[in-house]
Amino acid sequence: MKIRLICVGKTDFSFVEEGMDLYASRLKHYCKLSQVFIPALKGASSLSKDQIKEKEGELILKEIGVSKGKPSGKIVVLLDERGERFSSRQWAARLEKDASSEKEMCFVIGGAYGFSEDVYNCANSLLSLSSMTFSHQIVRLLFMEQLYRAMTIIKGEPYHHD
Amino acid sequence: MKIRLICVGKTDFSFVEEGMDLYASRLKHYCKLSQVFIPALKGASSLSKDQIKEKEGELILKEIGVSKGKPSGKIVVLLDERGERFSSRQWAARLEKDASSEKEMCFVIGGAYGFSEDVYNCANSLLSLSSMTFSHQIVRLLFMEQLYRAMTIIKGEPYHHD
Repeated sequence: MKIRLICVGKTDFSFVEEGMDLYASRLKHYCKLSQVFIPALKGASSLSKDQIKEKEGELILKEIGVSKGKPSGKIVVLLDERGERFSSRQWAARLEKDASSEKEMCFVIGGAYGFSEDVYNCANSLLSLSSMTFSHQIVRLLFMEQLYRAMTIIKGEPYHHD
Repeated sequence: MKIRLICVGKTDFSFVEEGMDLYASRLKHYCKLSQVFIPALKGASSLSKDQIKEKEGELILKEIGVSKGKPSGKIVVLLDERGERFSSRQWAARLEKDASSEKEMCFVIGGAYGFSEDVYNCANSLLSLSSMTFSHQIVRLLFMEQLYRAMTIIKGEPYHHD
């Protein structure tokens, strides 16, 4: 399974980085995971929210390798509050099904203002981790733990208790 | 606002502790928060899941200060997957309402096997942070971030974006 996590902005908190590293190291046994951190925009303070979303969107699409529309050979999933909600088992099943296509899975965690229209247009689906809002930093950690949990569910290992 | 967070078991990961400390320090400006960590049971490996829940339950009730039924002067909320789900704004509103009773709010994060019947019986409500399962360690971090977010929402501060 080939998984790419694309995050907008660097990881600000050392505890988030430390936690992500822990799960990344555990995930080595289950999948080929790469993480991309798109650097913060220069001069963002002089830009409007929409301009920031637009410019960040261009950088996200570049990382995914598409200029408009859906990429071929990849499944793009945006972490978005309006996305689908799953139980851990349901999500693991979805992940296993998607991965069986042998396409690379790209998960994208956006910046503080969300995604541009072009990024939404390139996505195959939206995933919501909670009805509550968590900081984009914390979401990185949540995603990594949930990805690790999904892998242990797929492999039938005893990490997950229902 | 007087808030008590009761967790079963010590915090295993330094990144979780570091993150909790960060939000605890920010929360000092908003509420009187105390954290209690109930130590792991001795000889737990020779106990069944139900015996562990039972024994942990007795220690939780002792911390809450009640032997059976609902305590007076306190509002007890268990973090539980079967609990109510809120948006961050909805939960902040609920917290503000509950706190207006001037009762101490006790939030409880259980161990790996959940709560005993007696602990459920002492609870005023159940709160679920997500339809997904996260480790009991990660839930501590989620709760702290969400509590901080709720405080900034109640005070009308710009941390939370809808």
